[in-house]
Amino acid sequence: MKIGIIGTGGIATSAHIPNYVKAGMDVVAVMNRTRANGERVARQFGIPNVYETVEEMLTYEQLDAVSICTPNALHKEQVLLALEAGCHVLCEKPPGISENEAIEMLKAAKRAGKTLQYGFHYRHRADTVLLKRMIDAGELGDIYAATAFALRRRGIPGWGVFTNKELQGGGALLDIGVHMLDLALHLMGYPKPREVVGHVGQYLGNRPGVGLLGEWDASSLSVEDTARAMITFENGASLLLDVSYMANIEEKDTMRVECRGTNAGASLFPLTLHTEKYGALFDERPTYLTEHDPYERQIQRFLEACREDPNYRQAEEAVILHRIIDRIYA
Amino acid sequence: MKIGIIGTGGIATSAHIPNYVKAGMDVVAVMNRTRANGERVARQFGIPNVYETVEEMLTYEQLDAVSICTPNALHKEQVLLALEAGCHVLCEKPPGISENEAIEMLKAAKRAGKTLQYGFHYRHRADTVLLKRMIDAGELGDIYAATAFALRRRGIPGWGVFTNKELQGGGALLDIGVHMLDLALHLMGYPKPREVVGHVGQYLGNRPGVGLLGEWDASSLSVEDTARAMITFENGASLLLDVSYMANIEEKDTMRVECRGTNAGASLFPLTLHTEKYGALFDERPTYLTEHDPYERQIQRFLEACREDPNYRQAEEAVILHRIIDRIYA
Amino acid sequence: MKIGIIGTGGIATSAHIPNYVKAGMDVVAVMNRTRANGERVARQFGIPNVYETVEEMLTYEQLDAVSICTPNALHKEQVLLALEAGCHVLCEKPPGISENEAIEMLKAAKRAGKTLQYGFHYRHRADTVLLKRMIDAGELGDIYAATAFALRRRGIPGWGVFTNKELQGGGALLDIGVHMLDLALHLMGYPKPREVVGHVGQYLGNRPGVGLLGEWDASSLSVEDTARAMITFENGASLLLDVSYMANIEEKDTMRVECRGTNAGASLFPLTLHTEKYGALFDERPTYLTEHDPYERQIQRFLEACREDPNYRQAEEAVILHRIIDRIYA
Amino acid sequence: MKIGIIGTGGIATSAHIPNYVKAGMDVVAVMNRTRANGERVARQFGIPNVYETVEEMLTYEQLDAVSICTPNALHKEQVLLALEAGCHVLCEKPPGISENEAIEMLKAAKRAGKTLQYGFHYRHRADTVLLKRMIDAGELGDIYAATAFALRRRGIPGWGVFTNKELQGGGALLDIGVHMLDLALHLMGYPKPREVVGHVGQYLGNRPGVGLLGEWDASSLSVEDTARAMITFENGASLLLDVSYMANIEEKDTMRVECRGTNAGASLFPLTLHTEKYGALFDERPTYLTEHDPYERQIQRFLEACREDPNYRQAEEAVILHRIIDRIYA
Amino acid sequence: MKIGIIGTGGIATSAHIPNYVKAGMDVVAVMNRTRANGERVARQFGIPNVYETVEEMLTYEQLDAVSICTPNALHKEQVLLALEAGCHVLCEKPPGISENEAIEMLKAAKRAGKTLQYGFHYRHRADTVLLKRMIDAGELGDIYAATAFALRRRGIPGWGVFTNKELQGGGALLDIGVHMLDLALHLMGYPKPREVVGHVGQYLGNRPGVGLLGEWDASSLSVEDTARAMITFENGASLLLDVSYMANIEEKDTMRVECRGTNAGASLFPLTLHTEKYGALFDERPTYLTEHDPYERQIQRFLEACREDPNYRQAEEAVILHRIIDRIYA
Amino acid sequence: MKIGIIGTGGIATSAHIPNYVKAGMDVVAVMNRTRANGERVARQFGIPNVYETVEEMLTYEQLDAVSICTPNALHKEQVLLALEAGCHVLCEKPPGISENEAIEMLKAAKRAGKTLQYGFHYRHRADTVLLKRMIDAGELGDIYAATAFALRRRGIPGWGVFTNKELQGGGALLDIGVHMLDLALHLMGYPKPREVVGHVGQYLGNRPGVGLLGEWDASSLSVEDTARAMITFENGASLLLDVSYMANIEEKDTMRVECRGTNAGASLFPLTLHTEKYGALFDERPTYLTEHDPYERQIQRFLEACREDPNYRQAEEAVILHRIIDRIYA
Repeated sequence: MKIGIIGTGGIATSAHIPNYVKAGMDVVAVMNRTRANGERVARQFGIPNVYETVEEMLTYEQLDAVSICTPNALHKEQVLLALEAGCHVLCEKPPGISENEAIEMLKAAKRAGKTLQYGFHYRHRADTVLLKRMIDAGELGDIYAATAFALRRRGIPGWGVFTNKELQGGGALLDIGVHMLDLALHLMGYPKPREVVGHVGQYLGNRPGVGLLGEWDASSLSVEDTARAMITFENGASLLLDVSYMANIEEKDTMRVECRGTNAGASLFPLTLHTEKYGALFDERPTYLTEHDPYERQIQRFLEACREDPNYRQAEEAVILHRIIDRIYA
Repeated sequence: MKIGIIGTGGIATSAHIPNYVKAGMDVVAVMNRTRANGERVARQFGIPNVYETVEEMLTYEQLDAVSICTPNALHKEQVLLALEAGCHVLCEKPPGISENEAIEMLKAAKRAGKTLQYGFHYRHRADTVLLKRMIDAGELGDIYAATAFALRRRGIPGWGVFTNKELQGGGALLDIGVHMLDLALHLMGYPKPREVVGHVGQYLGNRPGVGLLGEWDASSLSVEDTARAMITFENGASLLLDVSYMANIEEKDTMRVECRGTNAGASLFPLTLHTEKYGALFDERPTYLTEHDPYERQIQRFLEACREDPNYRQAEEAVILHRIIDRIYA
Repeated sequence: MKIGIIGTGGIATSAHIPNYVKAGMDVVAVMNRTRANGERVARQFGIPNVYETVEEMLTYEQLDAVSICTPNALHKEQVLLALEAGCHVLCEKPPGISENEAIEMLKAAKRAGKTLQYGFHYRHRADTVLLKRMIDAGELGDIYAATAFALRRRGIPGWGVFTNKELQGGGALLDIGVHMLDLALHLMGYPKPREVVGHVGQYLGNRPGVGLLGEWDASSLSVEDTARAMITFENGASLLLDVSYMANIEEKDTMRVECRGTNAGASLFPLTLHTEKYGALFDERPTYLTEHDPYERQIQRFLEACREDPNYRQAEEAVILHRIIDRIYA
Repeated sequence: MKIGIIGTGGIATSAHIPNYVKAGMDVVAVMNRTRANGERVARQFGIPNVYETVEEMLTYEQLDAVSICTPNALHKEQVLLALEAGCHVLCEKPPGISENEAIEMLKAAKRAGKTLQYGFHYRHRADTVLLKRMIDAGELGDIYAATAFALRRRGIPGWGVFTNKELQGGGALLDIGVHMLDLALHLMGYPKPREVVGHVGQYLGNRPGVGLLGEWDASSLSVEDTARAMITFENGASLLLDVSYMANIEEKDTMRVECRGTNAGASLFPLTLHTEKYGALFDERPTYLTEHDPYERQIQRFLEACREDPNYRQAEEAVILHRIIDRIYA
Repeated sequence: MKIGIIGTGGIATSAHIPNYVKAGMDVVAVMNRTRANGERVARQFGIPNVYETVEEMLTYEQLDAVSICTPNALHKEQVLLALEAGCHVLCEKPPGISENEAIEMLKAAKRAGKTLQYGFHYRHRADTVLLKRMIDAGELGDIYAATAFALRRRGIPGWGVFTNKELQGGGALLDIGVHMLDLALHLMGYPKPREVVGHVGQYLGNRPGVGLLGEWDASSLSVEDTARAMITFENGASLLLDVSYMANIEEKDTMRVECRGTNAGASLFPLTLHTEKYGALFDERPTYLTEHDPYERQIQRFLEACREDPNYRQAEEAVILHRIIDRIYA
Repeated sequence: MKIGIIGTGGIATSAHIPNYVKAGMDVVAVMNRTRANGERVARQFGIPNVYETVEEMLTYEQLDAVSICTPNALHKEQVLLALEAGCHVLCEKPPGISENEAIEMLKAAKRAGKTLQYGFHYRHRADTVLLKRMIDAGELGDIYAATAFALRRRGIPGWGVFTNKELQGGGALLDIGVHMLDLALHLMGYPKPREVVGHVGQYLGNRPGVGLLGEWDASSLSVEDTARAMITFENGASLLLDVSYMANIEEKDTMRVECRGTNAGASLFPLTLHTEKYGALFDERPTYLTEHDPYERQIQRFLEACREDPNYRQAEEAVILHRIIDRIYA
C-alpha cells in the first residue's frame, strides 16, 4: 500500500511516518510548500519523492492513501483533493474548523467510497480501549453525565502555529479540548447534542509569562486560551467541558474524562472505575495493562478500515463534534 | 437581645441554639408544630417558652430576632411573619424555593428595616474568610472562571425530609449544591447571570443501595439526585456547577469551589492558591490558620448586622441565587 | 429467651454480655467458681443470679441458652452439661482441646437437638461476610491454595491463663492461630484434610522481654510460642499456616488469610481482590463497607439458629478443625 | 585460565560471558547444537572456536573450566563430561533435576578434584552477603523458622523452554522456587531435612491470559505453575515454601526469604532486620550498601575456588536441595 | 513523705501535683501569694493547708520536700529557704537565672545534705532514657559534636509571665532553649565549656501576629525571641544551639538534639541512630518503646534520690548550664 | 575572546570547557604540569595548544582570559600571573587558602583593571537566583539569622587531592563548606563579621569505612573531616555553619542554607519560603522554575563582566570569606 505524507510537522515525523513504516506501508512521497522541509524529511526517512503541492503529489504518484498533518484550516481542501483522487485519508485532528467542513468531508468520503479517519489518538490508548470494551459490555449501564477536562497551567505551545487563528481556526479548544471532547463523546456513544452554552476568551495568553511548553509570542496571540461549555444531549445526558491553554490552576497538564453511568462510573487518565456490588462500594483500577503506542494502534485501525471496508462512522461523528464546537465559539 | 427559634431539627440544636447562647443572646422561645419536640428542645437548653405556631410565638413574645430552621418550603411565610413582627431574621439555607420567594423576602426586609441573613455557613469558615480577604485585596485579579462541586457518592441523607420535594422544593441542588453555588458567587462578587443551561435528574437514588449517610427510602424519593449547570455572567465570567447526592464517582463527599483570576487562582477546600511571581509558578496554601466554628462566626456577623445597620446585600444576593436555580430546574 | 453466662473473663464482659442485652435476651444468671467475680459482673450488668458451679446454675434456672467463656480445657464438660440440660450453647473458641472433644460435643448437640456455636468472631466481620458472599457467588472460582497468618512480634497476653498449658491445652496455635485457621477453612468450604505436617516450639516466650500486650511470666510459660504447618486436602488444595505469639519479625500483630482461586484471589485483612478481566489485571478493595460489631452479628446468627432450626455445621467443622490441630501438635 | 561456554541462551550472553571477560578469563570456545547460534555468540564476544558437541569442545580445546548454560535436563551429563575432562565447572541453576543427579555430580567432582559451583546468583547479591556475614557473626542467634516465597502473578516466561517438562524437569519450582529455596537453606546453614510435605499443580498456566513476561503457549504447558511445601529439619527448624509462576495474588514478582532467629530476624529483599535491644524493639535496614553485580561476584568466587582449593560444599548442598525438591514433586 | 507545693501555675497542677499523689506522697500544703489561687488548687486536689508565703509554709508544716513552680527569678530564694528548712527540693527549670544563683543553690544543697533536683523532664522521656542507656554502654563512642534546636515558628506563650524579663530573667533561651541545651549536655556527659559565642535578640515578637500558642502582648515583650550560640568544650567537642520563640521558618515547634559520636550518631525526637557495621550504613529507630509519662518518672527519680542518698550531680550540672547561658546573654 | 585553561581536573572537563565552547569562546590553550594530561584534554576538546607552565602559556598565547581549575594552594600565584598578563580570570573555588591571598588577588585585579571571578556555582542555580531576586525586592525584610549546612555522611572524595592539606589548604570546610558559607553570605548581602568561634577536627576520616564517593586513603588523610562555626556580624546578624565530610548522621549529602528575615524566611535547597500574610502562615515553594545549568550561567556572568565592566565585588567578598575561614581554622 502506497502512502503520501502531506505536511512535515512534529506529529508527522515523530508519530505518523515511523508507524507507517513499522506497519509495512510504502511511504513514497512527502509534500511541503517549502521544498527544503520536504527534502529534510525525505532524507530522514528515505522517502523517494518530494512535492510542493498536494495536486502534484496526487497527479504524479499512484497513492492508495494520504496522511494529512497540516494546520487545521488546510485540512478540508486537502482531504477533498485526496478523496477525489481515490485515496484513503488519515487526517490529523481536529477534522476541520467547522461543521460545514466536516459535512463536506463526510460527503466526499461517501462519494469516493474511501475511509476517512481523524487522528484522535487518545481513543487508541490501551486504557481507553479497555474502558470502551467495558462500556460496550454494559459494565457502566447508561452514561447520563460526563466531564471532559483539558487543562494546562502554562501550556501554550512555543512552536508551530498554534497561536494563529487564521491557520488553526481556534486555540485551546481546537488543539487540546477537541481531544477530550471527542474522547468523552466516543465513550458516551456520540449522542446527539440538544443545548450548548459556551464561554471562550483570552485571559492570560496575551501577557508574557512562564512557558512550560516553550516561549510563545504573547503579543501575536489571536486564539482563545480558555473555553468552557455545557452540552445537553437528546438522550438526556449532559457533558461539562473545561479547557485552558493557560490558567492559574493547580494542574500542570491534565487531560481527563469522567463518565457516570447507572451501574458504574469511570474516569481516564488513569483509568479508574467506581461501582457498587455485593453491598459494598469498590474503586477499581487496572493493576496491569499491556501498554502499546496509541499512534501505532491508530494506524493499524486505519489500515484495517482501508483493507476491509470503509466505514463512515468517524466522519459522521466529526460532524457532531464540529457542531458542538461551532456553538461553543458562537 | 431576645431571640425565638422556629423549628427544632439538627441544625437548630447542634449549630444555632448553642451559639446564640454562647453569643449572650436570650433564647426565650422555641416553636414546633409538634409540641413534644418543642418541649424536648426547651428542656435541653433551658428555653422558657414553647409554641406550636409562629404566629403565637410572635404574638406572646417580644422578640428582637428569630432563627428559622424549618423545611425550605416553609421559609418564605415564616420570614415574612417575623419581619412583619419587627424581628431580625436568620433563616437557614436555601433562602426559599424560588426567585419570587427571594424577592418577596427581600422586599419585606427592606420594608421592615430589619436584617435578613441566610445560613450559608461555608462563607464563615476561616479559609473562606481568608480567601475572600485576599480576593478583595486584589490578589486574584479579575475572576473570569469558576467551578463549584458538591459531589457525594452515596450521600442521600437518611434522616429528615430531604427526599420530599413538596417540603424541600428540590433535592441535591437545593440541599448541598446551593452551598457551593452561593460560595462561588460570593467569591466572584455575585455577578449578574446571563445564560444558564442546566441538567437535572434522578438516576441512582430511586434504587436501594449503600447509604453512607444512613438508609434513605429509595421508593419515595421525589427529588433530583443530580444537577449540573453552566452559567455565564454579564461581566464575561462563567461558572460550571456539578452536584450529586449519589453517583458512581471517586469522591465520597467533596465540597469544592475553584476560581481562576487574571493574577492568581484559588480553590477551596482546602484553600490553595496558584500564581506566578518572580518568573516562577507558586502553589501556596496556608500552613497555619486560626480555625473557628463557622456557625459561631455566622451568628457574630448576624448580631453585628442587627446592632449596627441592616444591610440587604445577602437578601439581594438570594434573588440572584434563586434566579439561577430556577433556570437550572426549568 | 433466658441465657446464663459461664465464666466472667474479658470476652464475657466486653463482648458477649453487652451484646446479649442489646439483642434483647434475658441474662438471668452468671457462674464463676469464685463467687466474688460472679457478683462483680452481676452488679455491673444487673444480672439477678450468681452461681459457683455450672450444675447449680442449670438446676436452679430455666435457661434456654448458655454462653461459655471459660478456659479451653473446661469447654467440653460445660458444653455437655448445658446441652444435656436442653440449652443452646455459644462456646468461645477454640471449641475444645482435641478432636475427640469436638466429636463428643457434636454428638451431644445432635442428641439434644440444640444449636452449638463457637465464638469465631472473625467470620462475622463485615469484610469476611462480603468475601464469603463473593466466594459463594463463584467470583473466585475454585480455591486451590490458601495461607493463614497469625503473627505477633511480642504478643503473649499479659493477663489471663494463656501461658498455662493445663488450662488452655495449647498456646499461640489454640489462642490466635485457631482464628485464622478456622477463617481460611471457612472460606475454602471446610475441605477434608489429607496430609498435615507441623512444627511447634517455644523459642522466645521463655525469656523476659518487651511485652506489647502486657508483661507475661516468662518463667512459667508452658505453651508453644510458634506453630507452623502445611495442610493438604482431599480436593487437591493446600494451606500454609504460620502462627507466633512472639518472633523477631516486622509484623506487630498480623491476622491474615489469603485464598487463591482459579478466577480470582482474595486476602483478608483488609479485604483485597486480585483478578483478570477484559485483558487486564485488577486489584480491587471495597472503598466503603458498612462496618458492624462482629460480636453483635455473631450473637444475631446464634439467635437465628436457636429460633429457627439447629444446624450442626459449625459443630461438624470443629471436628475437622481439631483434627488438623491435633496433627500439628503431634 | 581458559574457559569454554556450553549453551548460548540469555543467561550466557547477558550474565556469564561478559563477566568472564571482565574477570580476565580467556573465553576460547562456545558450544551449541545449532552451529549458527554458536557462531552468532562467538562473533558477538570474539570467541575464536565454535563446537556443536561438548565432547568435541573438550577434545580439541585445553580448557581449565567450562560454564554450563543449557536446559536443566542436560546439566548432569555435561557436568560429568567436563569434570572427567579435568575442568572446573560453573553450572547454571538448578544443579540437575533429581537428587540422584546431584549425587552423581558431587561424586564426579570429588573424583576429579575440581570445583563444581552452581549458578545461584541470589547468594551473591550485596544484601545477601551482608546478611550472611551477620548470621555467621551470630547476630540472629539460632534460626528456627524460615519462609521462602517466589511468587509471580502472571510470570510464565514467554521465551525459552521453561514450559517444557522434558527439557526442564519441572516448572515454577525448578526455575524460580529453587532460587529462594537455596537462599533460605544457605542462610539457615543447609540443615538436614526431616519431613517434607508438598503440593504441586497446574491451575492458571494452561489457560491463555495476560503475560507480564511475554506471551507463553498455554496449550503446551507441561510443568507446574504452583508449588508449595513445608519442610522440617533435624535441627528442629522449619521452612515454608510458596512458589507460583501465575496466581491471582497482589504480588507482581516477589522473591523473598525470611529467617527468624532467637536473637533477631531478617528478611530479604530488601534486607530488613528485626531485633530487641536495650528494652526496645528495632527494625533496621541498611541505608547504604555498596551494590555490585551478583553475577560478577559469583564468577569471582568461582575463580577463587578454582585457584585455591576445590571445596565441595555447594555440590554437597545441591544433594540436600534436590532431595527436598524430589519429595515436593513426589 | 510530706511535700509542699510552691506556686500554682499550669506545670504544678497538670504535671507535678497529680504525680506526687500518684507516687503516694502526702501533699500537705500549697503556697501562693494570692490566697484565692492557693485555695482553688487546694480544693481541686484536696490539699489541707494554704499559705501566702514560703516562710509561713516552712514554719507551720513539717515538710520533707517542696516542689517549686514559680517564675524563674524567684527560684533561688525559695530553694535556699527550703533547703535551710531541711527539705529536699524539686525546682522547675531553669534552675535560676544566673551562674551565681546556681552556685549558691548548689552550696546550700550540700550544706543541707538534701537532694536538689531541677525539672528537666525531657531527660525522663522513654526515648531519652533509651538513648542515654545506649550512650553509657558505649554505642556512640566519643561524642565530639552536638546540635540543639528549640525552634518555634509562632510560639510565644499567650499565658503566664513568659514575656516579662524581670520575673523570668530571659525569654526563649531560658524557657525552651534551656531544655534542649540541658538535654544535649546531659547526653554529652556535661563536659566543661571553653568558648561560647552567642547572639540574642528581639525580631518578631514585638509586632502583633499569628499566635500558635495563644495571643501574647507584643507591646510589652521584654525578652529575646531568638538566641543562638556555639559552645566549644575542653574535651574538644562542640555544640550548636538555635532557639526561637518566633521565626519565619518551616518548623512549627521543633525540640531536637543531635549527637555525633565516633561510633554512631543519634538524634532526638524521635530517636534515630546512624551507624556503620558489617560494611554497610544503618539507620535505626526503635519500632516499639514502652512509653511512660516523663513527669511521673521525674518524680520517681526525685523520690529515689530523697530516700537513698542525696547526690549533687544535677545541682553541679546547673552551674555549668547557667555559666553557658550567662555567656550567651553577655 | 581567547581563553586558556589552567588545570585539567574533572571540573575543567565536565563543567568549564564545554560551557566556554557553548558560549562561543575560543579555547586556544590548556596547561598541565604533566604534558600527557594536557594533551588528552586538548584532543578531547580540539584545543590547539598545550603548555606545561602557566608562564609559557601566558607568554606564547595572546589570551583575553584564563580559567583556573587547579588545587587550591596554587590559585593565588596563577591568578596573579594571569592578571599581570592582562587576562580576566575565572578561578575555581575556594578563592585561595587565606585572607592574605584573597587580599593580594583583589589588589592585583584592581591593578590590572580586569575581572576576577570565583567558581561559586551554587550562586548561579535557578532557585538561588530566584531567591536572591526576592531578597533584593525586600520579600524577606532584614535577614538577622542564617544557617549553612554542608553535611556528608560518608563523602570524602575518592579521587583528586582532597585529602592532601598541603595542596588543598584544608578539607571539608574549604571543599564543600565554602560553597554554603559563600551562598549564605551572598544571600545575606555579605555583611562584615564581628566574632567567629570555630571547631575543626578529624574524627572518622582517618579510619577505613564505607565510601559513598569512592574509596579514599584513610591512612594519609591530612585535612579536617568536620568544621563547625558561629559567626556574628556587625549588622547584628548571626550565622551557624556545620560542615562534615563524614559523620554518623542521617543526611547522605545535604547542602542547605536557611535565612530568617523579619518579613519572611527562606531555605535552599529546595527553595522554600515561610511567611505570614492576611493573618495566616504560608509555606511557599516554586511549583515550576525554569532550570538551567549553573555552570553555563556562571560563564555567561563572567563574560558579561569581562565585556562590560570589571567589578571587584566578588574579589572583595572573597576577602571576607577567607577572613572567616581563617578564624575558623585558627
